[in-house]
Amino acid sequence: MQTRATLLAHARDTLGAMRREGRYREFAHLEKLAGRFPVYRWHRPEGVREVTVWSSNDYLGMGNHPAVLEAAARAVAEHGAGAGGTRNISGTSPIHAALEAELASLHGKSGALLFGSGYIANDAAISTVLEALPGFIVFSDAKNHASMIAGMRHAKGVTRVIWKHNDLADLEAKLAAAPAEAPKLIAFESVYSMDGDIAPIHAICDLAERYGALTYLDEVHAVGLYGAGGGGISERDAAAHRIDLIEGTLAKGFGVFGGYVAGEADLVDFIRSVAGGLIFTTALPPSVSAAALASVRALKQDPARREALAGRAAALKAALDAAGLPRIPGPSHIVPVMVGEAELCRQVARRLLEEHNLYATPINYPTVPRGTERLRLCATPFHTDAMIADLVRALKAVLPARAVPLAAE
Amino acid sequence: MQTRATLLAHARDTLGAMRREGRYREFAHLEKLAGRFPVYRWHRPEGVREVTVWSSNDYLGMGNHPAVLEAAARAVAEHGAGAGGTRNISGTSPIHAALEAELASLHGKSGALLFGSGYIANDAAISTVLEALPGFIVFSDAKNHASMIAGMRHAKGVTRVIWKHNDLADLEAKLAAAPAEAPKLIAFESVYSMDGDIAPIHAICDLAERYGALTYLDEVHAVGLYGAGGGGISERDAAAHRIDLIEGTLAKGFGVFGGYVAGEADLVDFIRSVAGGLIFTTALPPSVSAAALASVRALKQDPARREALAGRAAALKAALDAAGLPRIPGPSHIVPVMVGEAELCRQVARRLLEEHNLYATPINYPTVPRGTERLRLCATPFHTDAMIADLVRALKAVLPARAVPLAAE
Ligand SMILES: Cc1ncc(COP(=O)(O)O)c(C=O)c1O
Ligand SMILES: Cc1ncc(COP(=O)(O)O)c(C=O)c1O
Repeated sequence: MQTRATLLAHARDTLGAMRREGRYREFAHLEKLAGRFPVYRWHRPEGVREVTVWSSNDYLGMGNHPAVLEAAARAVAEHGAGAGGTRNISGTSPIHAALEAELASLHGKSGALLFGSGYIANDAAISTVLEALPGFIVFSDAKNHASMIAGMRHAKGVTRVIWKHNDLADLEAKLAAAPAEAPKLIAFESVYSMDGDIAPIHAICDLAERYGALTYLDEVHAVGLYGAGGGGISERDAAAHRIDLIEGTLAKGFGVFGGYVAGEADLVDFIRSVAGGLIFTTALPPSVSAAALASVRALKQDPARREALAGRAAALKAALDAAGLPRIPGPSHIVPVMVGEAELCRQVARRLLEEHNLYATPINYPTVPRGTERLRLCATPFHTDAMIADLVRALKAVLPARAVPLAAE
Repeated sequence: MQTRATLLAHARDTLGAMRREGRYREFAHLEKLAGRFPVYRWHRPEGVREVTVWSSNDYLGMGNHPAVLEAAARAVAEHGAGAGGTRNISGTSPIHAALEAELASLHGKSGALLFGSGYIANDAAISTVLEALPGFIVFSDAKNHASMIAGMRHAKGVTRVIWKHNDLADLEAKLAAAPAEAPKLIAFESVYSMDGDIAPIHAICDLAERYGALTYLDEVHAVGLYGAGGGGISERDAAAHRIDLIEGTLAKGFGVFGGYVAGEADLVDFIRSVAGGLIFTTALPPSVSAAALASVRALKQDPARREALAGRAAALKAALDAAGLPRIPGPSHIVPVMVGEAELCRQVARRLLEEHNLYATPINYPTVPRGTERLRLCATPFHTDAMIADLVRALKAVLPARAVPLAAE
């Protein structure tokens, strides 16, 4: 076989099918403006326009916090642009160590370990734990993120049991049906990023204790945002001590880049010592680590942005509801608006951008199941009442009345 | 089973065994000093000491290049600390697009795609290609990096055939033995990072053509360093057009952080559109991308650092040889000195650091096979003759005469 020709034909077919189904993703070129968040400059061949972004995961605008920018700039000047090696091969700076200590303390754990991203943290930590003991069964919430699923799939000889999203009865039935002598891991998230709902952490931990299972919690969409010190939903609910491994990102609430896990020091040291996704890759740049450290510390000390976020999310939800727009209800800062069809979703987003200077990413398959395509909105502390009013006006203009209503879910 | 207790016992046993075998890794805390590379500050509980680092992968010192630092600092000030989203969800800045265009042009390709690291680039691109067609056979050089192997293992239904390192006869025998109708990929590196030897790219491409195989080349230890514009060994050997996918890092020769693949635009677009390791993770910070872009451009225009590196590597090799030290011979900038036993290797490195203020990482299993433990040295353009003389003196003092000689390999 001429592999090149066959592969290229397959690639073109796939891209063609994605285009036909409205699933082909074009990355908008959006220039973040440090001083003007959430206003960005949208670059197109035709020119540049200012737009208001409603889809940033820099939930608190920490990517623009003066202390964070200052820490980044200073570390660049003092330590240069890159780490210059893997953690083991001259790439560990005192800043990495300080950030790991800070993250361990954030979650009340004795250890924490940095990774290049939240994605790798999940992939590497989950696969390493699951390969540590023979016959592991992992109980995975049906809506778990792709990076957690990657970690489960990448561990050899593991049985994956999927339980219905946030459904305790289903989880218990599945735990009870599994062999008592098998090692078990329950893997779940706190805030689910596409629906904005929140897991019942204590109840899941009760089941974990009853069935002798380990617990793994992805707090990617919660760290920095919830809890008195920004430790996430597990801090807010006083449940962190019941979770064996808490995973988080430095790229969303903390506004920078990178990921981590926190847990018992020996378990974390074990992951550090064997996980390929840590050993065989360059350490985060000192400036990224320094910026993240400044962000974690700022959010630990000062709840102002967290409180503002809660207020803005409430205002956005109230405004959407008042306008009768098809919002998926939920208790978090994530506000999805249902559209229900890929091509329509793409068109709605395009009209928001082109006609109203508002950017909201269309969320299509494979990020969400087909038929549940949506816009996913977040009001940061920097989204004003006027911006919310603008958005609601625009949504009413571009969302066809026939947009799949919530009941169709 | 009480999974937590069983797992912790296993973790402690494993860590204990690593300690006993001298394989337990402690990360030295090394503070990079932008203005003084390769002199770092080594932080210990007892205090801080200045040391000369011989194990940096910032091969050209681009992490300290003025244009790179300026680009990083300016992007922090203008665009903030993080991208704030995945590439698709508001995280693509014009800087990402410019860097991708620059990397495509660096390798003479019509497309390029950024990833969070070279590790993820390999994992995601290789697994995506191998899953694209049923029945793929991947022919993998025996010394391929862990991240390439991860990509092969993570693709379902793939047959992996390992050929002897850089051995064309073995590769051909294995290609000839495989079914003619199966899609095939040959995966290899240009500069092998632990031995410093270089693959015969043209001869491998000849075999790929003969047997209809796709070619995938990891240039992680070569980009920025070789070729008239820093395009790696494939540029130096005028072979880039014969490689389907060239993978590289922005974290070594370019001195920053991140990874990429370059190839035919539709193939790259296909990977962009389906690879989970790209879709489900936050984009690189604008400042990291801006610094990398400045670095790629600087090295494209000015060969001075490349030439200096070649000169310094030659000087280091000559000095080691003159002193009769057990260097593994090789044509690249990577200079391994054989020790041959894990605990000894660790001790040699410790004495270099504690008694001579020289840092060289002991390279142990699993990074290299047991029995081939070594120190891996690199002289950057900033390592002076006096530093080389110092190093040679220290190695003679700490390497026992009984250190496994090269012939024992
Ligand atoms: C639930 C969840 N976990 C992990 C990740 C990955 O984190 P990162 O962007 O740091 O790779 C994401 C999204 O990016 C996510 O939504
Ligand atoms: C051959 C090879 N490929 C890929 C990588 C991964 O690159 P990165 O450090 O950017 O993850 C490395 C080392 O880090 C390597 O040695």
